[in-house]
Amino acid sequence: MQKIIAVLVLAGVASASFAQQTLKPEEMIKFRKAGYSFMSWNMGKIKANLDGTFNKDQVIAAANLVAATANSGMGALYAPGTDKDVAGEKTRLKSEFFQQPDKVKELAMNFSKEANELAKVAATGDVAAIKAQFGKTGGACKACHEEFRKD
Amino acid sequence: MQKIIAVLVLAGVASASFAQQTLKPEEMIKFRKAGYSFMSWNMGKIKANLDGTFNKDQVIAAANLVAATANSGMGALYAPGTDKDVAGEKTRLKSEFFQQPDKVKELAMNFSKEANELAKVAATGDVAAIKAQFGKTGGACKACHEEFRKD
Repeated sequence: MQKIIAVLVLAGVASASFAQQTLKPEEMIKFRKAGYSFMSWNMGKIKANLDGTFNKDQVIAAANLVAATANSGMGALYAPGTDKDVAGEKTRLKSEFFQQPDKVKELAMNFSKEANELAKVAATGDVAAIKAQFGKTGGACKACHEEFRKD
Repeated sequence: MQKIIAVLVLAGVASASFAQQTLKPEEMIKFRKAGYSFMSWNMGKIKANLDGTFNKDQVIAAANLVAATANSGMGALYAPGTDKDVAGEKTRLKSEFFQQPDKVKELAMNFSKEANELAKVAATGDVAAIKAQFGKTGGACKACHEEFRKD
């Protein structure tokens, strides 16, 4: 039931007709933190390529991972109640996340758009364009952190 | 230096010319665990779709995430010494991982092959073919767990 609500909250992002796994709240927190953590490693790789020696294949692979994460339907990992530490699994999610569904949807859709554009631009190998799109994607991450993540 | 060695160990999987981030051993352990954890959520979603109501879009998104993870060059997250808990970051990696580079390479390349095939088959929407390829991909995960992961 909690999961169905979570999916509906992000109905604009994730289809409500998705098959549902049975996940405990602490598993949701664990998986979503894992997704952001692994994505941050890949964003870091793109940054290292832009700041140092540029390897097109590595940047494409990293950008594809960022886009695939953005497209993975993480809205299903935000059931009400998961704004609090559960069973030892800590979260920095602010309670406002569940009170501002329109803002969440707006930020999630913008992140998705920028991440998919990053993968598209990465495939071209145009370093200046990748740098610009990397900035926009990082900005989309940051916009959500500022709104809904505790320091 | 440790990272360079780690990359060379998996030279057949990850190009040694990759730009390198400066990561601490505990960060390597954290990021690789995050990658596997988030991937397991996506494998679980595919399983839920195969066992229940099949949603092609969700399966494609999950399979793309699995493939993108397989293609992300995780070999760089295996520096020697990261077979032990570091700075509170726990790992189940067996020391044998660093003693059997040929076996590691074989298992990693096989996983990569099966994961990319899963993404390809998912795009067709052929449920029977996806089920078969999901089994092969899960088998490739398991083969490495049995060899190099402590229980």
